[in-house]
Amino acid sequence: MSLMKLIKLTPAVLMAATLPSLALAQDGPVAGVNASTDSVFILNSFLFLVAGFLVMWMAAGFAMLEGGLVRSKNVAMQMTKNIALFSLAAIFYYLIGYNLMYPLGNWSVGTDETGGYLGAFGPAILEAVGVTSDAADDYGYASTGSDFFFQLMFCATTASIVSGALAERIKLWPFLIFVVLLTAFIYPIQASWKWGGGFLDSQYGFLDFAGSTVVHSVGGWAALAGAIILGPRIGKYKDGQVHPMPGSNLALATLGTFILWLGWFGFNGGSQLAMGTVGDVADVSRIFANTNTAAAGGAIAAMILTQIMYKKVDLTMVLNGALAGLVSITAEPLTPTLGAATLIGAVGGVIVVFAVPFLDKMKIDDVVGAIPVHLFAGIWGTIAVVLTNGDATIGGQLISIIIVGVFVFVVSLVVWIVLKGIMGIRVGEEEEINGLDMSELGMEAYPEFSKG
Amino acid sequence: MSLMKLIKLTPAVLMAATLPSLALAQDGPVAGVNASTDSVFILNSFLFLVAGFLVMWMAAGFAMLEGGLVRSKNVAMQMTKNIALFSLAAIFYYLIGYNLMYPLGNWSVGTDETGGYLGAFGPAILEAVGVTSDAADDYGYASTGSDFFFQLMFCATTASIVSGALAERIKLWPFLIFVVLLTAFIYPIQASWKWGGGFLDSQYGFLDFAGSTVVHSVGGWAALAGAIILGPRIGKYKDGQVHPMPGSNLALATLGTFILWLGWFGFNGGSQLAMGTVGDVADVSRIFANTNTAAAGGAIAAMILTQIMYKKVDLTMVLNGALAGLVSITAEPLTPTLGAATLIGAVGGVIVVFAVPFLDKMKIDDVVGAIPVHLFAGIWGTIAVVLTNGDATIGGQLISIIIVGVFVFVVSLVVWIVLKGIMGIRVGEEEEINGLDMSELGMEAYPEFSKG
Amino acid sequence: MSLMKLIKLTPAVLMAATLPSLALAQDGPVAGVNASTDSVFILNSFLFLVAGFLVMWMAAGFAMLEGGLVRSKNVAMQMTKNIALFSLAAIFYYLIGYNLMYPLGNWSVGTDETGGYLGAFGPAILEAVGVTSDAADDYGYASTGSDFFFQLMFCATTASIVSGALAERIKLWPFLIFVVLLTAFIYPIQASWKWGGGFLDSQYGFLDFAGSTVVHSVGGWAALAGAIILGPRIGKYKDGQVHPMPGSNLALATLGTFILWLGWFGFNGGSQLAMGTVGDVADVSRIFANTNTAAAGGAIAAMILTQIMYKKVDLTMVLNGALAGLVSITAEPLTPTLGAATLIGAVGGVIVVFAVPFLDKMKIDDVVGAIPVHLFAGIWGTIAVVLTNGDATIGGQLISIIIVGVFVFVVSLVVWIVLKGIMGIRVGEEEEINGLDMSELGMEAYPEFSKG
Repeated sequence: MSLMKLIKLTPAVLMAATLPSLALAQDGPVAGVNASTDSVFILNSFLFLVAGFLVMWMAAGFAMLEGGLVRSKNVAMQMTKNIALFSLAAIFYYLIGYNLMYPLGNWSVGTDETGGYLGAFGPAILEAVGVTSDAADDYGYASTGSDFFFQLMFCATTASIVSGALAERIKLWPFLIFVVLLTAFIYPIQASWKWGGGFLDSQYGFLDFAGSTVVHSVGGWAALAGAIILGPRIGKYKDGQVHPMPGSNLALATLGTFILWLGWFGFNGGSQLAMGTVGDVADVSRIFANTNTAAAGGAIAAMILTQIMYKKVDLTMVLNGALAGLVSITAEPLTPTLGAATLIGAVGGVIVVFAVPFLDKMKIDDVVGAIPVHLFAGIWGTIAVVLTNGDATIGGQLISIIIVGVFVFVVSLVVWIVLKGIMGIRVGEEEEINGLDMSELGMEAYPEFSKG
Repeated sequence: MSLMKLIKLTPAVLMAATLPSLALAQDGPVAGVNASTDSVFILNSFLFLVAGFLVMWMAAGFAMLEGGLVRSKNVAMQMTKNIALFSLAAIFYYLIGYNLMYPLGNWSVGTDETGGYLGAFGPAILEAVGVTSDAADDYGYASTGSDFFFQLMFCATTASIVSGALAERIKLWPFLIFVVLLTAFIYPIQASWKWGGGFLDSQYGFLDFAGSTVVHSVGGWAALAGAIILGPRIGKYKDGQVHPMPGSNLALATLGTFILWLGWFGFNGGSQLAMGTVGDVADVSRIFANTNTAAAGGAIAAMILTQIMYKKVDLTMVLNGALAGLVSITAEPLTPTLGAATLIGAVGGVIVVFAVPFLDKMKIDDVVGAIPVHLFAGIWGTIAVVLTNGDATIGGQLISIIIVGVFVFVVSLVVWIVLKGIMGIRVGEEEEINGLDMSELGMEAYPEFSKG
Repeated sequence: MSLMKLIKLTPAVLMAATLPSLALAQDGPVAGVNASTDSVFILNSFLFLVAGFLVMWMAAGFAMLEGGLVRSKNVAMQMTKNIALFSLAAIFYYLIGYNLMYPLGNWSVGTDETGGYLGAFGPAILEAVGVTSDAADDYGYASTGSDFFFQLMFCATTASIVSGALAERIKLWPFLIFVVLLTAFIYPIQASWKWGGGFLDSQYGFLDFAGSTVVHSVGGWAALAGAIILGPRIGKYKDGQVHPMPGSNLALATLGTFILWLGWFGFNGGSQLAMGTVGDVADVSRIFANTNTAAAGGAIAAMILTQIMYKKVDLTMVLNGALAGLVSITAEPLTPTLGAATLIGAVGGVIVVFAVPFLDKMKIDDVVGAIPVHLFAGIWGTIAVVLTNGDATIGGQLISIIIVGVFVFVVSLVVWIVLKGIMGIRVGEEEEINGLDMSELGMEAYPEFSKG
């Protein structure tokens, strides 16, 4: 039963969970106690807490990145959306999402054997206070509280991705309603297909270590659907020209990127789901190193490419290049060598440099570049798993990318259309021109600084 | 003796400290070595270091929150105060505060049995370099260095709370003198009553897990006394009207809130004081999850309430709502369910929305909302312990809130009055209007940006 | 062989690595398994990962500090340089630096016994996925991935130091070429002399726990060479006067300082290189506490001194004072008492207050104060080791400071001169006056805020 949570474990870990750990094996009888598993439980849980707070910190990273890339008249709104979406994700993942994502075999539709399609309903319940080893929910794994905390942050990340793409024109409340549906249903359901042991995992052999597809492309697809329904900002594509609307604070955007880079060590490293053995902690270490170098590869690739193409380095491309490198390595941060990880990340950086103008050509207005970074690089990263992990098949990866993509894109599209019909999702023209801060919130982010 | 530091431990932990831990129990004789306690010592110490650096990070959070909520002409001063108060707290908690707070039975006034009232004097002394287990100060607990590091950060937090409320008009040096007295004496003395095993702990059964009262209300009471003696900013309450003075940088204020939210995992999680057993690490996990959801509850409650009351969401209320949620759960982050924690936090958010205009009505000018967040929500959180923890009594909680409140408020009031008499605590009218940055520091935080 | 990585270990650690650890010693035979070392390996590796992500975070701290201290017209460029230098450091330390720094006895020039001078060539190679204890590269120490991750961050820090001093006038690409040479060769080669077990370690008994000399002075020497070759900014020293060019965002600079302060716990604490025993974790705890108090001492010393000297507290001096305190304690954060650590840090703060105007008198234009903080305080900290660590000799410390200084300064000088000759290192006069953001990048960091 508990194996459902072990889905992402490497073979070495699975062995550790079933065999007595070498690390602390007892040579004589200890009544009713498996010493090794206590230690593994403690270390795994602590990994989740540390990795979880790093991923939580990514929520701040998205807020700063987006706050830096929107114009100053929309900064307070972007802050509001980011803190609200994180809060809503916390509450609705608790109420609905967590058990939908991890049904532990209790599928509402499907079974572990034939393929799970829809998880369990009911709020998350943590272990009792002062739990003992024999009463722990998942003694070979980690505490439920740590697992919930860690997994919640991934759900919230998905929502953070959406907010940037739709900035500067979407109304606050329809956006938040979408966030509720995304974090309560859309994200958890598709995540259950892989990480909850559902059909993508059991039937298609889909591999996605930390979520290039399950997290990042999902945010990207939801953002793409929203951007299409919402339409571009006023004046963005006028007279057949693309009119750049520069971000108001590139120091803040850079800070956001550094925060995301830092948080990603938790995102990918924590996804090892274990560090109680020599093999696991060495794997987590590989993942940290690979994650870092992939980001570096993405940043440098974008820097060199913009220098060549535009004769000037483009800082926002470098930032997005680093992020695309991170997304690219997320589907498989463990098996690549440092060199391969650097190249996988670099390809992500290249993708961003070409995808941003491509989206503009399609007149899809993605304010911060979330779709190139999270969707396009996410697809790339998911495919790239086959380059370094022999267990992955190109067919299994592609079909899973498509299934997840179609599900998320279509459901999101329907939700956006319904929201548009019921309450409208876009602010009025005057409100948009004046900025959402004054028109929707009645306050400014930088009330004292004269705007030129 | 060392049990004084175990005051906050749960029953499961106390067992682990006195019985051989199940986790690593040896089945045969190992000369002079209790393997389990070594492991507990290491893991507990590391918890303090990780939680401690998270709480240290809250100092940056307060600085950014306050820097974002003051007007631009006072930002450099607010930065100066925040970095200086943290530094002074570090030095004076070392010189005086630590042993006052943790006398380990050596009370200057009182005893463990009859009730301790005033701790021990003398600077903190860490364990020797390369200490061995038999020479460790507190082998069943954690290293003294890690304990000192962790506890220091709580002391500094108390001072951070004060700086925001009194911003934009208090002189630098009198403020810093107050900080010295607060961190050397006021905070440690009252903290000893509970966490040092003093009379509130032994005689009243007061429960305050991570300090809704011991830390947050203390900062709030000190701030309230200061705000009353100092008076409101010029022009704040003119002609019977409240004149809003919007913060200069809401992106910075939001960053500060996210930093505090992150740091709070260390604040509450580290206060479990142990993670060397299955029960402890599961409890730390519950605390992380509950802390997060309480913040979310506070933010969402404030968001919905401001929408209803003012027809517009108020970002600063949402930020303070999240912080109030965090303060509210701090007195008992372990026993609530996720649902109860969300509601406890939500009540904190509601308190803030009503308390901010209430203070304005009282003409108490609290620049950043520190008193609603840390004092009012701190009181609420301390009372709310009785809702989920059967060991708490409403009487014990209330009497402790009152004793701590009276002590801190009265002593602070006296200190502020004396400082006012001796050296004045408020800058001149012209200095205040020109801003403290130019008048007191001779520099500006944003010298190039035109102010409108 | 693997002892090369244990260079910085304290005696207690070395014992733990060679004797069966007391902590988890088995009393009976366990076939082929040394349980204690498994546990040590796991905990040491995790220390490196946690400390490593904290040091990585320092890259963001440098970016924010520098972004806050340059004028707004150069902020986007400063962001670009910081994210690019970190990325280049990641790639070139992997390709070249790591094995040059840690040859593990395979010196290209020299031997462990007679003194190592030039390490090994070849890219870093991490342990295999799912490694077992008998196949771990360095089973008594930590995983190679964690060691690489941690050590890389020190290399990147060195480069970060340089970027601040040379801001506002150096061209992007020559700067980045210097970063490549610094992180691939200059830093790793001299670091190998001490931390790789080279001649400074084996022949001179040089002690530098976490790198006051090996990291900070190296960055400072490279910056000094660059500042001399580059010359001061236009208008900085005009008509025999020093013309202050105030930083554009002191809130950002303060944030950067707090980030660096936080990251330094990883920098110094992780340099214990072990936490698998009672002695090690207690030592790491001492280091955390000492690091914090040294920063506090530096900040307060600078604050009091500027108040006395200039009648006004200077925030940028306080920030640099805190950083100088951190640099000062870095060569020996373990052996001082809390009081000694505070004083060592305070001397660092004093040095900064005097060194900044001294450099201006020499017409060496260091935009952010990197040379006083990292070079001067680094030298002080390296000498101060003899005050608290009986194993250090004043002769060994001085000769090592000089050898490292001469090597880094001369090589850097040559590199800067060659770069100047080949491609020029300084932007044109008009570009400098207009700001590097528009002239080199074609974008602004704050495009909407009117500049006064």
